[in-house]
Amino acid sequence: MSRTVQEVIEKLIEPAGLRLESTVDTLKSGRLDAQVGKAAVAFTATYTVIRQAVEAGADLLVTHEPTYFNHLDDSSWFSEDPVYAKKRKLIEESGIAIFRLHDYIHRYRPDGILIGMLRKLEWESFADADNPKLLSLPDEESHTVGTVVQHLKSKLQLDSVQVAGNPEMPVKRLALLPGAPGGRAQMQAIGRNGVDLLIAGETSEWETNEYVRDAIDMGMAKALILTGHQKSEEAGMTTVMEVLRAAFPDLPVQFIDSPAAVTRM
Amino acid sequence: MSRTVQEVIEKLIEPAGLRLESTVDTLKSGRLDAQVGKAAVAFTATYTVIRQAVEAGADLLVTHEPTYFNHLDDSSWFSEDPVYAKKRKLIEESGIAIFRLHDYIHRYRPDGILIGMLRKLEWESFADADNPKLLSLPDEESHTVGTVVQHLKSKLQLDSVQVAGNPEMPVKRLALLPGAPGGRAQMQAIGRNGVDLLIAGETSEWETNEYVRDAIDMGMAKALILTGHQKSEEAGMTTVMEVLRAAFPDLPVQFIDSPAAVTRM
Repeated sequence: MSRTVQEVIEKLIEPAGLRLESTVDTLKSGRLDAQVGKAAVAFTATYTVIRQAVEAGADLLVTHEPTYFNHLDDSSWFSEDPVYAKKRKLIEESGIAIFRLHDYIHRYRPDGILIGMLRKLEWESFADADNPKLLSLPDEESHTVGTVVQHLKSKLQLDSVQVAGNPEMPVKRLALLPGAPGGRAQMQAIGRNGVDLLIAGETSEWETNEYVRDAIDMGMAKALILTGHQKSEEAGMTTVMEVLRAAFPDLPVQFIDSPAAVTRM
Repeated sequence: MSRTVQEVIEKLIEPAGLRLESTVDTLKSGRLDAQVGKAAVAFTATYTVIRQAVEAGADLLVTHEPTYFNHLDDSSWFSEDPVYAKKRKLIEESGIAIFRLHDYIHRYRPDGILIGMLRKLEWESFADADNPKLLSLPDEESHTVGTVVQHLKSKLQLDSVQVAGNPEMPVKRLALLPGAPGGRAQMQAIGRNGVDLLIAGETSEWETNEYVRDAIDMGMAKALILTGHQKSEEAGMTTVMEVLRAAFPDLPVQFIDSPAAVTRM
């Protein structure tokens, strides 16, 4: 059965149940009428990921983050840049279609990235039914900031995380906010609903980190764990695998993960 | 000799040699006509820093970052927030004046934060005269990403940094960009002027980190070191101490530093 890039994109947008007038979810390269014989899914279309997708024979790469290092994939100020030029050359010569699935997957009901992360963390059953970014850990288990850190490091294969707060602090109620939804969303998540612990991907350090520091210094039982942006969302893109497999059972789909861009020294 | 908050602020703005029409450098609390018998200087007016300043008898606290966890110190959406309320109560009851010195100190000629950091790192003599954020390490010394990491950890008392790139890579030319000036400034700094290594405070991970990752994967000799935002700028605020001592030789001034808000686990 043959299907075009356009037909695949339609199926990726469908679970959101709406159309956005303004969105970064656009085709970054390739043609909507091209045939898709194989698809690849990744968190970021890095230079290496694109090469791996091309070598695997993928015609379409679905990615969550920008291709050209800024939210709008604005390349106007990159015209002289050798990294931009070499990446663009690889993409154009390969002919691969790259579609960004960011705004829509976060509007799946529930959020496709969040659900994928809950599954990866084996926390689906702890999430509030009506607001699954809020979780209650089981009463019969004794969790602390430290035990949650160990769980995250193990499940997400992280060498380390960043923490504000006392590792011995008991945790009953937490908020899981993958990615970087902004300081306001992060601060409101930890400031409300009896939440002890915020697990975030990436913060602006002078916003959320300082709010949690102040709360702790005021004697409030609060803590923050930062996993890094990529590993807070990457496994969430497995939701895309499921959508594609359900819509196109005969379409080969490959997930390409990456190490984090930075390591701790 | 007596001087008012207003008079102190005038001296803090003076080295910029201009007046900004729109700036976050405003008085966050207190009165312009209040007398200043003692001043304190800090990177961020955390809850603890404000308490320390009040206990030390300071009437004025000069800080680089916001007091209320967002760039504009917008408190409209914090009206119900207990952390905001408790911080505001401490500030109002103490009567301390808090002045943010952010936009102006970065417009000192040269940038006051940058110069303070170069001094702290003992790198003043390596900086380009016309653009001191660009540095050439001495030919007679053999530097690598790894030796620069050790230097930064030692001078800034960091337990760790984040690195993209090969620790063995030789480094001759580097860009030092304290704080979080944005992905475009960071990417242009490492992409131009023969720069091997970018030392940054804070990035958006999906921008600068991915640009450097791609450059490295393309075979370019590039590297990135992230120190964290606070420690990339905090020592730069010692420039404020010098300005105040020169302008008001009899004014007691105290520097209040803080540990980073998060630690690595």
